[in-house]
Amino acid sequence: MTRIIRLLLSYDGTAYAGWQRQRQGERTIQATLEDCLRTLCGHPVTVHGAGRTDAGVHALGMVAHFHTPVDHPLTAFSKGLNSLLPPDIRIFEAREAAPDFHSRFSACAKMYRYDFCTGEVLPPERRLYMGHFPGKSLFDLKAVSKALHHLCATHDFTGFAHALELHEGGRGAVRTLLAAHCEPIPGLPGGWSLRLKGDGFLRQMVRIITGTVVEVGQGRRNADSVLEILAARDRRLAGKTAPACGLFLERVLYPEGV
Amino acid sequence: MTRIIRLLLSYDGTAYAGWQRQRQGERTIQATLEDCLRTLCGHPVTVHGAGRTDAGVHALGMVAHFHTPVDHPLTAFSKGLNSLLPPDIRIFEAREAAPDFHSRFSACAKMYRYDFCTGEVLPPERRLYMGHFPGKSLFDLKAVSKALHHLCATHDFTGFAHALELHEGGRGAVRTLLAAHCEPIPGLPGGWSLRLKGDGFLRQMVRIITGTVVEVGQGRRNADSVLEILAARDRRLAGKTAPACGLFLERVLYPEGV
Repeated sequence: MTRIIRLLLSYDGTAYAGWQRQRQGERTIQATLEDCLRTLCGHPVTVHGAGRTDAGVHALGMVAHFHTPVDHPLTAFSKGLNSLLPPDIRIFEAREAAPDFHSRFSACAKMYRYDFCTGEVLPPERRLYMGHFPGKSLFDLKAVSKALHHLCATHDFTGFAHALELHEGGRGAVRTLLAAHCEPIPGLPGGWSLRLKGDGFLRQMVRIITGTVVEVGQGRRNADSVLEILAARDRRLAGKTAPACGLFLERVLYPEGV
Repeated sequence: MTRIIRLLLSYDGTAYAGWQRQRQGERTIQATLEDCLRTLCGHPVTVHGAGRTDAGVHALGMVAHFHTPVDHPLTAFSKGLNSLLPPDIRIFEAREAAPDFHSRFSACAKMYRYDFCTGEVLPPERRLYMGHFPGKSLFDLKAVSKALHHLCATHDFTGFAHALELHEGGRGAVRTLLAAHCEPIPGLPGGWSLRLKGDGFLRQMVRIITGTVVEVGQGRRNADSVLEILAARDRRLAGKTAPACGLFLERVLYPEGV
């Protein structure tokens, strides 16, 4: 009988070309997991993730699943798998999933966090885990909150997505942003965390929203400009894409009971 | 006229063989600073640090100073130096110091922080910045606080110092621990920060104290055992030396006006 194993995992994306297995054998999270699971299970394994993080993006609570006929105890897929994986990928939990579970299609929402620093100097011990936007003026959190408030609804987010990505069929580029907050990082002057929760995210959407609202916070554009970007559906009107290293997939949410 | 320039700096010690310049040309913080300052000043520069951190140890608020006859503006030694330094060493401030200032001898106290994780799995994005002490039992913070309270006074700390280090002359191995606290890290279950403030620290003292009180917290020794270690002045009675990567020099304190 085939089991479906559901994994909760974290990774430091610094050394990886993103989640998805690449043709040329670049180092990716999916390929690393699949290689270790093949050793553990004795058969080729395909790992499905709840989302495909880009190169350099981190995850604190990625959910993934795979099928296997082997009857290993669940600890084989947590402790056992951790003993095979490099220390920058860690399994926090492995459990049996229902036959209809799919890490991506069963998910109802995702939470992302973008950490950044507006101080002149980027703290060296955080440099791999924050974007750096040095600015001379005070960071206007109120204006940022206003811009985020505008975004927090159901919109066509084409203007905040990678320009070469096509959004055809299904819901197109329409997504619902359920929550969006920016808060100072305690103990780190000039450090900010932007948290977004949504029913889905287009490619680079969190990083483009971040790049745009940072410009709002630094007085380089006004909060209402995000409404124009939404209306025009034109990526060129939005801000720069924030660097990958500040982005964390914090959590994948599923309906109750899943 | 010779100026004394005082630097406030941070570094990620992961890629360095510690602070102090090594004979064989290993990569160290001091050597990296001196090489960049030589380029900047046009003459060989000796950088004196407030302390010598070991290989892999980080600093958030190291203080250092050097002498130079050049009349560069101070920004040359902050922004200018940062443009020459690798991103894992950052200057936060450069200022003129009084002729009798010495980063090490003028200091009156230092604050260190040791971050560690007692959870089963070490979060991958923190693995370079925390010690990992997985334990099955609950971490007994009350017992740890009792052990730290015992240590927090003027003692001969030979039992908590690197065994091969000699403490002859002057105050020998007598140091005063002024404050010692252990607190949970917000948002990180199983994460703890141990903070020590003292008028001076022997080699590896913070890491040996950490290793010892972690054993107390995990019920593998009792809090009063630290009194025996102090009395016996025997390193072998103390706990294991905690890994370098969890240690941060947080701050160097000077008398008011210095």
